Amino acid sequence: MASHTSYIKLQSKGFSDVIDITGEALRGLKSSGIKNGILCIFMPGSTASVTTIEYESGVIDDLRSAIERLIPSDITYKHDRRWGDGNGFSHVRAAIMKPSITIPIVDGELTLGTWQQIVFIDFDNRPRGRKIVVQIVGE
Amino acid sequence: MASHTSYIKLQSKGFSDVIDITGEALRGLKSSGIKNGILCIFMPGSTASVTTIEYESGVIDDLRSAIERLIPSDITYKHDRRWGDGNGFSHVRAAIMKPSITIPIVDGELTLGTWQQIVFIDFDNRPRGRKIVVQIVGE
Amino acid sequence: MASHTSYIKLQSKGFSDVIDITGEALRGLKSSGIKNGILCIFMPGSTASVTTIEYESGVIDDLRSAIERLIPSDITYKHDRRWGDGNGFSHVRAAIMKPSITIPIVDGELTLGTWQQIVFIDFDNRPRGRKIVVQIVGE
Repeated sequence: MASHTSYIKLQSKGFSDVIDITGEALRGLKSSGIKNGILCIFMPGSTASVTTIEYESGVIDDLRSAIERLIPSDITYKHDRRWGDGNGFSHVRAAIMKPSITIPIVDGELTLGTWQQIVFIDFDNRPRGRKIVVQIVGE
Repeated sequence: MASHTSYIKLQSKGFSDVIDITGEALRGLKSSGIKNGILCIFMPGSTASVTTIEYESGVIDDLRSAIERLIPSDITYKHDRRWGDGNGFSHVRAAIMKPSITIPIVDGELTLGTWQQIVFIDFDNRPRGRKIVVQIVGE
Repeated sequence: MASHTSYIKLQSKGFSDVIDITGEALRGLKSSGIKNGILCIFMPGSTASVTTIEYESGVIDDLRSAIERLIPSDITYKHDRRWGDGNGFSHVRAAIMKPSITIPIVDGELTLGTWQQIVFIDFDNRPRGRKIVVQIVGE
């Protein structure tokens, strides 16, 4: 049994930018040598999240529209009155969407569905450099 | 320390069908022989999710109503204009509800609350056969 | 490789009371002696959740407002017609926000961002005593 850490570095545009990180997560898995266990992808920070979706531009737009409808960027947030960065909506979106997902590793592969990709969503209100953690425990 | 994989096969009706999979998850745990660790239940696919709830028909209906209100099935989704399957709302629901949960295993039991069941929710717009992954790491 | 369990006991006020549990989670980590692996924080029960957020009173209020807007406490829930406890909204909120998060452990530290705290949110409609599980697997 072992534990293995790798990182995905990327540059996002912010504003619910959705980036496919499946390939990078798989690279982390391959370099670990772990064949069976659990992979945790975690976003350090309070304005971005990780989930899975079919990485198709139509449904990506649908997800972004749904998030804008549910947690609008154009209403008043108390966070913005206290801090000048204007990204209260980003914080609320990230808290609701949560920072991580866990995926089983079976026979050296992630158990993702055929049309299921791992995505990073940056809810911040500006471009950001990000460093996402890929943590694996298993054997 | 070991890793153990089992699967839950089921037939859902789609349209936010909520199915109690606690018993099946416990069966996977018992067959693993693992006494302490973490269990990850993961849905391979882009139109369904896993969470916990008190499995009581009133609150199940309440959850389904909330999801319909938050991510309606009767508005336009771009996914549906590009693909003929009409399940754009299913994809958005699954991306927001996310594909997995993790639960501690302590002394051979899941640490669920008394009235807390593990449920699979199928957001797709038709009946589906599903194969959910139960992954356990521990000792 | 080892597994370690500890508990966070707290008293909440209910009604989306948001409590910072980062320090307690770190205490669990330190007492485990585990340096690399995964930490799972899990809420046993059907009316509360765990996520991360910048623990700043403005954005905490923003999160609470968003949750009240998305899953209102003042609409009718079927759960409340069958059971007298009037907390149908609490159950729906917890099912959508989900009971757990997982966080990587690297070199004896959680990989949280600088302004990212782990929080427990109690959605119930009364003060509650709670016992949250901190489960760690790693080496």
